[in-house]
Amino acid sequence: MSHPLFQHAVRVYWEDTDAGGVVFYANYLKFFERARTEWLRQLGVGQQALREATGAIFIVSDTALRYRAPAKLDDLLRITVLPTEIGRASMTLQQQAWRQDGEESTLLCEGSIRIGCVDALSFRPRRIPPTVAPAILKALSA
Amino acid sequence: MSHPLFQHAVRVYWEDTDAGGVVFYANYLKFFERARTEWLRQLGVGQQALREATGAIFIVSDTALRYRAPAKLDDLLRITVLPTEIGRASMTLQQQAWRQDGEESTLLCEGSIRIGCVDALSFRPRRIPPTVAPAILKALSA
Amino acid sequence: MSHPLFQHAVRVYWEDTDAGGVVFYANYLKFFERARTEWLRQLGVGQQALREATGAIFIVSDTALRYRAPAKLDDLLRITVLPTEIGRASMTLQQQAWRQDGEESTLLCEGSIRIGCVDALSFRPRRIPPTVAPAILKALSA
Amino acid sequence: MSHPLFQHAVRVYWEDTDAGGVVFYANYLKFFERARTEWLRQLGVGQQALREATGAIFIVSDTALRYRAPAKLDDLLRITVLPTEIGRASMTLQQQAWRQDGEESTLLCEGSIRIGCVDALSFRPRRIPPTVAPAILKALSA
Repeated sequence: MSHPLFQHAVRVYWEDTDAGGVVFYANYLKFFERARTEWLRQLGVGQQALREATGAIFIVSDTALRYRAPAKLDDLLRITVLPTEIGRASMTLQQQAWRQDGEESTLLCEGSIRIGCVDALSFRPRRIPPTVAPAILKALSA
Repeated sequence: MSHPLFQHAVRVYWEDTDAGGVVFYANYLKFFERARTEWLRQLGVGQQALREATGAIFIVSDTALRYRAPAKLDDLLRITVLPTEIGRASMTLQQQAWRQDGEESTLLCEGSIRIGCVDALSFRPRRIPPTVAPAILKALSA
Repeated sequence: MSHPLFQHAVRVYWEDTDAGGVVFYANYLKFFERARTEWLRQLGVGQQALREATGAIFIVSDTALRYRAPAKLDDLLRITVLPTEIGRASMTLQQQAWRQDGEESTLLCEGSIRIGCVDALSFRPRRIPPTVAPAILKALSA
Repeated sequence: MSHPLFQHAVRVYWEDTDAGGVVFYANYLKFFERARTEWLRQLGVGQQALREATGAIFIVSDTALRYRAPAKLDDLLRITVLPTEIGRASMTLQQQAWRQDGEESTLLCEGSIRIGCVDALSFRPRRIPPTVAPAILKALSA
């Protein structure tokens, strides 16, 4: 890959943990979404602004996650975003959560997220706005 | 009080706990709201239907909670709702969370929640719809 | 199938929704877990009691979900649990979320959840306790 | 006040919002806790490390919040922390959530949080560890 992978830092707080003493697995979907949101933002796409300008929102249609190792309170995670496919009204991203442990990095969770573009009122699929698609395509081919 | 206090049962699941091994304190606000929602429903008020019919929604404007004892995974809680004040555009409720321990009940959390009625779009205060206020007034005076 | 599918009712509250006006997709993982917990409970397995008696906990190792249609505030969902595989230290379940719309049922979300049995302290895989495995096997073959 | 107030930035993501189109009120307790955690960290106190070294954890015993104005998706909030009282086994902090709107700042939520120091296993009150108390006292008198 010729360009640096997009990364977003997430700190683990009490709210993220469960009685197993580790991050509650459903919360990786939140961490992954925060990273996707920041990835879109650095491509120039603010989702609230997009909705107000075009009436389009992105929704999640498929998620497949594998949980490999637990994270704990106060851990600092690194969430990555890699677009792997973009279509007329959808895109797919590979995402991972890593923790730095001294010199080593531990892969905690990884998965694939499929996003659809829909009308905010009807939830019917619609084309990814032309102001957005080229930025994602460029990220994809980088 | 001449009538039974409204009660709603809540089971504690993994999602509700934190790394302290107990229910995460912010989640009592969720438990209290579930009970208020069911209290409104048995008064004949569905919030989604209310919004569609009148454009009004209830929002929380003040919360004051005291946490007295921890709850654990699999505990079955009893959440109570007691309206204590109703005005033109707001109401106040006292709420408690209890756990049955054999013959005894343990008070886990209690507090006061103030609710405002607002327009769903502008968030400006508006009068509690006349289809709703009498039911609450009746509950208050019971 | 010769036996009734296990079902658990879940009501949609404010806490479950997002600014799209519908249930936030990550919350289906919570709904599915509530149903699995109640499925285990009716098989005689309380997870807190299991942990205290054996030191074992169940953790989620893989989730694959497809989101088909949105749910809204006040909707009443029916969550199903169908075990499809059980091994020495893991099991897999198929789960669905349905909403009754008059005479019709709408499938909102479905997926597959893989669960591992681990030691609560070390998180190392361990055999599903012999007090639990037969009950699940029986559910599987029913 | 002779020193700068501690501040922590929080971005609003989909996970934080509800069907009212704004931040779900219970989530301000999460935002406030993230800011307290970072405030403790810059005083040299990591909560996971504290627990491992001393067996003590901080728990929330009282919260009183007032919600003044709604926040929306993509808003960038500034959360403040001001300690106002420290005792042998507890402390109280004033916290606020602000949003910058051009030249103006809007106060969205404010409140008071009381924290107790307890033993992580028994949840019995215990003295704030001597490695922690002086740092907080210093912040209080600054």
